Amino acid sequence: MKNDLGELKAICFDTFGTLVDWRTSIIGQLEAFGREQGIEADWTGLTDAWRGAYKPNMRKVRTGELPWTKLDDLHAMELDNLLVRFGVEGLSPEQKKHLNRVWHRLDPWPDSVGALASLKSRFILSPLSNGNVALLTNLARHAGLPFDLILCAETCRHYKPDPETYRMPGELLDLEPHQVMLVAAHNDDLIAAAGQGLRTGFFPRPTEYGPLQNKDFKAEGEFDVIGENIRDLAAQVLARAG
Amino acid sequence: MKNDLGELKAICFDTFGTLVDWRTSIIGQLEAFGREQGIEADWTGLTDAWRGAYKPNMRKVRTGELPWTKLDDLHAMELDNLLVRFGVEGLSPEQKKHLNRVWHRLDPWPDSVGALASLKSRFILSPLSNGNVALLTNLARHAGLPFDLILCAETCRHYKPDPETYRMPGELLDLEPHQVMLVAAHNDDLIAAAGQGLRTGFFPRPTEYGPLQNKDFKAEGEFDVIGENIRDLAAQVLARAG
Repeated sequence: MKNDLGELKAICFDTFGTLVDWRTSIIGQLEAFGREQGIEADWTGLTDAWRGAYKPNMRKVRTGELPWTKLDDLHAMELDNLLVRFGVEGLSPEQKKHLNRVWHRLDPWPDSVGALASLKSRFILSPLSNGNVALLTNLARHAGLPFDLILCAETCRHYKPDPETYRMPGELLDLEPHQVMLVAAHNDDLIAAAGQGLRTGFFPRPTEYGPLQNKDFKAEGEFDVIGENIRDLAAQVLARAG
Repeated sequence: MKNDLGELKAICFDTFGTLVDWRTSIIGQLEAFGREQGIEADWTGLTDAWRGAYKPNMRKVRTGELPWTKLDDLHAMELDNLLVRFGVEGLSPEQKKHLNRVWHRLDPWPDSVGALASLKSRFILSPLSNGNVALLTNLARHAGLPFDLILCAETCRHYKPDPETYRMPGELLDLEPHQVMLVAAHNDDLIAAAGQGLRTGFFPRPTEYGPLQNKDFKAEGEFDVIGENIRDLAAQVLARAG
């Protein structure tokens, strides 16, 4: 397999779950907000419900039920619903914006930054995320993710798994699809990327959804690289790139 | 003036001339190519003519005479003309592509990387250039320019000085125009940016055009920050951001 990734030029990363631990980060920041403001609520339930609304809300955009709406705005719409449902009342617009911006302040998994740093000198690094440009730019700076550029749903105004999202890195970086790899801890994302000719790299994040996790414990496709973790995946990619 | 830039969040940089020394880089690489291939030509004249065609060719896109065409493709069209005009014959498509890609391999001015590094922890850093995404991504990696993201003409499919280009950073980064600064060694670029409400920073690059330089030796507008050089400009911005 030595050098079978010799033509690889760019590695794009799914971000939520793959590089950053959204669930622990959000629960922690919402709980801290609740303590500061003297508000008791089921912040864990709210976090899981917020993430649970992610795919259905993006689907409304993907099917045309909603016009193009960036993820910050989908998150804000849903947060308004969830604050009512979870009995959190009386927040100011500034407080709601601060809470919605929690998605800009997610912490990386402990091994993400080192793995990306090891790949940085050899490959162009970018997210390929359903987040928007502001979210991902702020997140990369907060988490220390050393991206070269930000590619995301907002860049092409399509959400994954629309094919346009996977074609975008090659088109904008002037590369063939096989010169681009998507790395993700999610089987469905990688299967869609492979369908557009991208190289694929999987490793598991078995605690992404906490006790609710019910999938993505292992690779369920013929991916180019399968790592035990992100460090192992990065080492395999470097070895096979030659 | 202390803290009068306290709300500044992002600094965008004109790139050709402001951060990288395109003229010396291109002349040097074309001369090296000529020596390797045994081709004698007026490489300096070709370089100056190539850059001379830059604004007229972009103007064709800006006025609608040409459909949207990224800068790599404008450069390639012009290179074909110039190779004929300067008597360089018999190049393969691969050699022409290699020469056209010289714009991806420009060296930074000696003080650019340090100045950007000093600003990086406090501000979002991006180019705001007429280059395309692939060009600027490769250039940033070659030159060591520590951008957080790549914003450029291709991102909004408009060339500077179209107003859309200056509005784009705020729109994509969810910032007000006054929270964004354009830094450039070119008066006309900054005057257009100020017209869209951006903060502006000028410093001179008096040798950008070599012996042909006939403008931009000093600031000719009411810019927010005027530096003797890029290091001085960065120090002033940091002091006034508080």
